[in-house]
Amino acid sequence: MTFLPSKKRLAHIVYESDDSASKNFDLILLALILLSVLVVILDSVQDIHQNYGTFLYWLEWFFTIVFSVEYLLRIWLSNDKPGYIFGFYGIVDLLAILPAFLSLILVQSQYLMVVRALRFLRILRILKLPEYLREASLLISALKSSRAKIQIFVGSVLTIVLVMGSVMYIIEGPENGYTSIPRAMYWAIVTLTTVGYGDISPNTDLGQFMASIIMLLGYAIIAVPTGIVTSELTHAKNKSEKSDRHQFKICHGCSLQKHSPDAIYCRKCGTKLESPE
Amino acid sequence: MTFLPSKKRLAHIVYESDDSASKNFDLILLALILLSVLVVILDSVQDIHQNYGTFLYWLEWFFTIVFSVEYLLRIWLSNDKPGYIFGFYGIVDLLAILPAFLSLILVQSQYLMVVRALRFLRILRILKLPEYLREASLLISALKSSRAKIQIFVGSVLTIVLVMGSVMYIIEGPENGYTSIPRAMYWAIVTLTTVGYGDISPNTDLGQFMASIIMLLGYAIIAVPTGIVTSELTHAKNKSEKSDRHQFKICHGCSLQKHSPDAIYCRKCGTKLESPE
Amino acid sequence: MTFLPSKKRLAHIVYESDDSASKNFDLILLALILLSVLVVILDSVQDIHQNYGTFLYWLEWFFTIVFSVEYLLRIWLSNDKPGYIFGFYGIVDLLAILPAFLSLILVQSQYLMVVRALRFLRILRILKLPEYLREASLLISALKSSRAKIQIFVGSVLTIVLVMGSVMYIIEGPENGYTSIPRAMYWAIVTLTTVGYGDISPNTDLGQFMASIIMLLGYAIIAVPTGIVTSELTHAKNKSEKSDRHQFKICHGCSLQKHSPDAIYCRKCGTKLESPE
Amino acid sequence: MTFLPSKKRLAHIVYESDDSASKNFDLILLALILLSVLVVILDSVQDIHQNYGTFLYWLEWFFTIVFSVEYLLRIWLSNDKPGYIFGFYGIVDLLAILPAFLSLILVQSQYLMVVRALRFLRILRILKLPEYLREASLLISALKSSRAKIQIFVGSVLTIVLVMGSVMYIIEGPENGYTSIPRAMYWAIVTLTTVGYGDISPNTDLGQFMASIIMLLGYAIIAVPTGIVTSELTHAKNKSEKSDRHQFKICHGCSLQKHSPDAIYCRKCGTKLESPE
Repeated sequence: MTFLPSKKRLAHIVYESDDSASKNFDLILLALILLSVLVVILDSVQDIHQNYGTFLYWLEWFFTIVFSVEYLLRIWLSNDKPGYIFGFYGIVDLLAILPAFLSLILVQSQYLMVVRALRFLRILRILKLPEYLREASLLISALKSSRAKIQIFVGSVLTIVLVMGSVMYIIEGPENGYTSIPRAMYWAIVTLTTVGYGDISPNTDLGQFMASIIMLLGYAIIAVPTGIVTSELTHAKNKSEKSDRHQFKICHGCSLQKHSPDAIYCRKCGTKLESPE
Repeated sequence: MTFLPSKKRLAHIVYESDDSASKNFDLILLALILLSVLVVILDSVQDIHQNYGTFLYWLEWFFTIVFSVEYLLRIWLSNDKPGYIFGFYGIVDLLAILPAFLSLILVQSQYLMVVRALRFLRILRILKLPEYLREASLLISALKSSRAKIQIFVGSVLTIVLVMGSVMYIIEGPENGYTSIPRAMYWAIVTLTTVGYGDISPNTDLGQFMASIIMLLGYAIIAVPTGIVTSELTHAKNKSEKSDRHQFKICHGCSLQKHSPDAIYCRKCGTKLESPE
Repeated sequence: MTFLPSKKRLAHIVYESDDSASKNFDLILLALILLSVLVVILDSVQDIHQNYGTFLYWLEWFFTIVFSVEYLLRIWLSNDKPGYIFGFYGIVDLLAILPAFLSLILVQSQYLMVVRALRFLRILRILKLPEYLREASLLISALKSSRAKIQIFVGSVLTIVLVMGSVMYIIEGPENGYTSIPRAMYWAIVTLTTVGYGDISPNTDLGQFMASIIMLLGYAIIAVPTGIVTSELTHAKNKSEKSDRHQFKICHGCSLQKHSPDAIYCRKCGTKLESPE
Repeated sequence: MTFLPSKKRLAHIVYESDDSASKNFDLILLALILLSVLVVILDSVQDIHQNYGTFLYWLEWFFTIVFSVEYLLRIWLSNDKPGYIFGFYGIVDLLAILPAFLSLILVQSQYLMVVRALRFLRILRILKLPEYLREASLLISALKSSRAKIQIFVGSVLTIVLVMGSVMYIIEGPENGYTSIPRAMYWAIVTLTTVGYGDISPNTDLGQFMASIIMLLGYAIIAVPTGIVTSELTHAKNKSEKSDRHQFKICHGCSLQKHSPDAIYCRKCGTKLESPE
């Protein structure tokens, strides 16, 4: 049929996002994903489930079928089939449709609802747009290059939580809600992160004194991850900017790339530099 | 009459703030705005409403009439009437007087009180002063240039909230206060942002373990927006300083702009530099 | 008498801290200040007050007399008497001794106890040591130079608090604890700053949705003051370091100070530079 | 016997981590440490203690004996015996085995459990790996070089806590839970650090107003430690990077050290530079 696009054109629409057809495909898909997530959320509210449960059930199946068609389409169109199926996006796409089919086989389907929420991960598709990719990779590389510092920080936090949890378990004891070291550690995390539910809180004088110390610690050490991320981001920004500024002047004599913006001659071989524009 | 200032002079007083008359106009207006906001706040306190309700009611009308006169004056004096009326400040000025007039027509006027609070936005007029404008625009441009990073951050936060909310809804269930996914998501936001009211808090062991993870996540990822804003501000500061330092010396021989502040001859072509003042 | 130091020597001991006698004076004074603060704190605990009340009362008078003698000594020794008396430290020193004397005259002396706590401000004397003075002035100048940005930030926070407080007062109403706009604003501050006591918390669905927005706002905008302070501190640090690095090479021909660290000849007049060491 | 490694080889396995045998030793030790910590934690949970108490008791002794052997081995193999025994790691290693032995002698052995938790500090051994050592020393030197600023910050926080605690004790009084100044100071710390348990919260209008101020203060001054740490880290990063980049090229003619990475001739005396590798 002449109405249908060729397989190559279809693959372009599905996998790229640089012309109007492929961009519309992405936008419609995104809207469907958001709607399907909304269905899962609304279905969990008692009132809505009782009144519109059947309607939401069929809507759920509608989205499942649409996403299944899309999933099969992506496998069919992909040049690197195993790369897609076992890659991050392939698994996310599968997780979005699997729970509905499993609910037909399994009886206790209520636990599949959690996995339905993983459908939200599909929104990460938006990150495939070039402008986001660059920013996200900047963030991730910033975090990666300070991995050792972050591990030390996490280790310190866990040590504080364990030691302070144990100490509070001894000081306050089960009669004040600190029924075990794990629970006391839960309290220590609630306190160190400055969440402070108040479901468990110290009642003895010594306990309140120890709690004050852990609070001040938590208040202070939040500066460490912030400092790490900020210094990495500032560094990455300066670096990317410097390379932006200097990359356009290339010596044709010796291929040296990074020239001072006002250089006229190559500082290495003396060849006259040409402007890139 | 000779007592009244000319329309041009009046427009200057109302719209500019560079001489004593126009500065006084701004200050008196600001005081009136603050007083009118105070009236709205005081009127909401039961004791004060019962004792001084009538007085506050007439005060409210006094401010409404003053602001209406000012609004009409601004329209009359503006060179670009639609620009003012449909601009940010025009709409804010209108919103400050509209509720009072609408309360005459509508019966359920209590809901108009919210809109009365929007009157506080008029204080933003202070930002029209040149020294604030520059700083605010620096902040806004810093936020704008890291828009993509912020969107990724907000997306991640919402994904964490949805997934963790759903998981906690399954783990804790309605018997522990997690009555629906939206409510569990509300809890996840309360926890991730380290607010921690304690109106809903996990009771099961697994729930407390999951809550600990979301708390530590919230404690850590606050570093990301901070890092973004800081690196942008540091960058903007460096940039504005560099341009401050170098902008004034331009070589008339080769048009090279960025000269060291104490340079006497152009470093590129040897022409003697002239001072801009 | 020959045992007593001269007035000049005494003034040195009291006002300076560069030899052992003056340093010991500062340390003993600091210990006395800390002990006097401890007395005030301990006296507030019921058990301790009942058992040791009389002892603490006389201890209180001991400190008051010591500090009074020190206060009079400082006035007598000062070269600029009004400068000391009406300066920051003079007022703090007076506030530390005044409440005790006033309690003899006034009947309701319990309210004077608050002012007794102001005695703790005397610890700021430690900041007079040169190493602290430099750091503190760096912090203060960093905050000062970003005053306009901080004012905008505080203005935004107050606007959010007022608008969100009013909105929540309408949505939740007095039946959920939001009894007036001021109380709703108190809740908004508790939430925006991520403190989250839970003494007032939203119960309606719409209220919880609005609360989620204000929480996320609070979580995000904390990045702004952090960014401002950090960028100012980084800037101040770079500046002070640069001036440290360059200050030692001075051209004897034209008195130009800031030379590149490896410069051999003055870039302005060609005189050969000499090393400062 | 030929099966046993020499003392020198054993010392290498125990103290270094640069070949497979010594790395495996470290990993097995780390696993044992983690397991022994887990035993302490699990033993504190009522259900587990009642069912598996005896098993955990013998497991505890197993770890104690293993760690005792390791401790004695380390002393025997060390070249600097007092340096190990009284150093940080020696004391931590001793604290990990001491409580079990003391429980044989002492009756009230339950208080020794806290000290058992100190065993977790042994995990810090992981920091002896070269890659962590470098990062940790960077963090510590960053904190050290801003010690004066941090002391000023801590001093300010304690002053705010004392003054605000005293003020709230007077305003709210014992009838609202502020039973003494120490307790009011505990509340002030809970509030300033934005933890906000809600076990004590202000009830009077004036108290809520003061609480709002302390919350906003806490929300704002968290920017100060963050700013300090960030500016130090950024500074340390720039410095270490600069020295990385420049350290390897030294001119043999004039001993100038900092050359641009691609420089071929010394920019000061024209001597040809030699590569360090």
